[in-house]
Amino acid sequence: MPERPILVIGGGPAGLEAARSIADLGYKAVLVEKRDRLGGMPDEAGYAQLTDFRDAGEAMAEMAGAVEACDEVDIRLSSTVTGSIGSVGNFDVELTNGGKPETLQVGAVIVATGFQHFDPGRETQQYGYYEHDDVITLVDLEKMLKAHNVVRPSNGEPPERLCFIQCVGSRDRQIGNEYCSKVCCGVASKEAIEVRQQLPNCKTFIFYIDMRMYGYWENEIYWPAQEKHKVNYIKGIATEIVKKGDRLLVRGEDTTMGRPMEVPMDIVVLSVGMEPSAGTREMARIFGLTQNKYNFIETTGGALSTVTTNVAGIFACGATTGPADLEDSISSAGAAAMKAMATIRKHKDTAA
Amino acid sequence: MPERPILVIGGGPAGLEAARSIADLGYKAVLVEKRDRLGGMPDEAGYAQLTDFRDAGEAMAEMAGAVEACDEVDIRLSSTVTGSIGSVGNFDVELTNGGKPETLQVGAVIVATGFQHFDPGRETQQYGYYEHDDVITLVDLEKMLKAHNVVRPSNGEPPERLCFIQCVGSRDRQIGNEYCSKVCCGVASKEAIEVRQQLPNCKTFIFYIDMRMYGYWENEIYWPAQEKHKVNYIKGIATEIVKKGDRLLVRGEDTTMGRPMEVPMDIVVLSVGMEPSAGTREMARIFGLTQNKYNFIETTGGALSTVTTNVAGIFACGATTGPADLEDSISSAGAAAMKAMATIRKHKDTAA
Repeated sequence: MPERPILVIGGGPAGLEAARSIADLGYKAVLVEKRDRLGGMPDEAGYAQLTDFRDAGEAMAEMAGAVEACDEVDIRLSSTVTGSIGSVGNFDVELTNGGKPETLQVGAVIVATGFQHFDPGRETQQYGYYEHDDVITLVDLEKMLKAHNVVRPSNGEPPERLCFIQCVGSRDRQIGNEYCSKVCCGVASKEAIEVRQQLPNCKTFIFYIDMRMYGYWENEIYWPAQEKHKVNYIKGIATEIVKKGDRLLVRGEDTTMGRPMEVPMDIVVLSVGMEPSAGTREMARIFGLTQNKYNFIETTGGALSTVTTNVAGIFACGATTGPADLEDSISSAGAAAMKAMATIRKHKDTAA
Repeated sequence: MPERPILVIGGGPAGLEAARSIADLGYKAVLVEKRDRLGGMPDEAGYAQLTDFRDAGEAMAEMAGAVEACDEVDIRLSSTVTGSIGSVGNFDVELTNGGKPETLQVGAVIVATGFQHFDPGRETQQYGYYEHDDVITLVDLEKMLKAHNVVRPSNGEPPERLCFIQCVGSRDRQIGNEYCSKVCCGVASKEAIEVRQQLPNCKTFIFYIDMRMYGYWENEIYWPAQEKHKVNYIKGIATEIVKKGDRLLVRGEDTTMGRPMEVPMDIVVLSVGMEPSAGTREMARIFGLTQNKYNFIETTGGALSTVTTNVAGIFACGATTGPADLEDSISSAGAAAMKAMATIRKHKDTAA
């Protein structure tokens, strides 16, 4: 019996890294992606630059190209996983491609279905995302930055004052997302730098609770944002956005100065957090994976086990298991590939 | 010619995970550790609990035991790497064990030599680490927590008031460590919880700039620390510690209240950051690895390449490349193992 391949679900950074890693060691992988192209969220959401300031489209094309060049990887686009039976070493996984069903026989599974951005219209009505044209999200701004066309949606004119509001959909008990989404401080700061580069006359502000610029983001993004690019960081809480004449008025409290604030803005960017994607929730259901209270897939074994799920032979990586930056996704994808191959190898030895 | 093994340098969490991963796929590894036992910094520094609140000694013993049980891993304790010649696929690495030299022929190398804690007596004299007995570090407190004996070094009595000062040796341009050490907010909060558990009458404070409780640390450590364990978080900057009678006086500024503060403490814990270990700096020199300005080993390729160095066949993981939490170390070690095996495999194919 030939060795069964490893199923990788999701064609974003984590899934691409996992699939290529498997191929690099001569194992076979099937990479399933629901969209008709690879590249995942950075491609789908039209990110301008990654947090290392590399062009996101170019980086994702390079990752996708490397996987496409692997004979060992069978890529299935426009396909979704709809069911699974069996256990470690012998999973029969049902797939559909535009209604055309198929059963794949795989030895192990890596779930890399990632996250979705929090919908700021859903529960934080005080920010008026659906009400005010010039209230946008980090993702909306990425698209504008990519197109080199940062303008006020209400009138098509470049903004003179733009601000970010951090922790929208994160660190928020009222909406049930108590966790920190980890990347928004870094992403907002990166976008603020890009705004300042594209529109040097646009005053740019970030309202935050804590700036979580951990590790090298501190020296590579946060300090240059302040010193070189003159981004203004204000520790404060925005409670309301109202329309005032042609502009938006952000109301809240400057917690450092200990006083109320009312600042006019042309564009307000909501730094929306991470939630498990529909695919992540669906794969948890299909494979019987334990989810945490936020519906991300739970890894077992604490800090020393980052990709193992409750089901033997099924591994999870990237933002499938919780808020993750790109480095997290790449490293955990490599680790998941390694563990999935070890599982296949062990099962073959046992079965032999 | 038999396949050359992979050399893993460092027997801490990252090195142990890398060595076991290599064995799991049937490749051979040589694990070199300078101490006479495995377990790395959590063992050497006597950590009480990991950030997932698991007993650190037990967790490290389990990791070490798993590697010791691998036939494929040749463990060399009390050994250090002293030189290397050759290139990818064919490194001849010199080793010494108590003056006894040996040459190992290896195909690839994983550097997992990690970090050392910042020495707070070195440059931040205002905190009086060498001057005041009751000024200690995160590491000193770990040992006390592990021994269930948290007492004032000056008089052996349990403290009634204990505080942590964050960012000692991190985010500090004057001493040249501009980066954030990433884990100190989480570690200090974990230790604060343990203090409150062991000494319920000890009032516990954390003075911070930003609380970088990213991802799940927010809901798993930070919220419980405040709500369940009544740890007091104060956004403030401590500028000086002086002796006042039997106690210490912490002087600085409460930046939220916008006023100077002077608070008496029985123990002051300096939350010291991460610097590259002597081993990391030495391995960089021996293998010709590019270091960043902080002397950590630099990875190439930005966010999408987390373990690759400038030298083909040499990989770095864990805190060898910069501030890293345990999850980072475990994931990047798996990824490094995978890439090192791929290198060996590719080289064998090329040479065949």
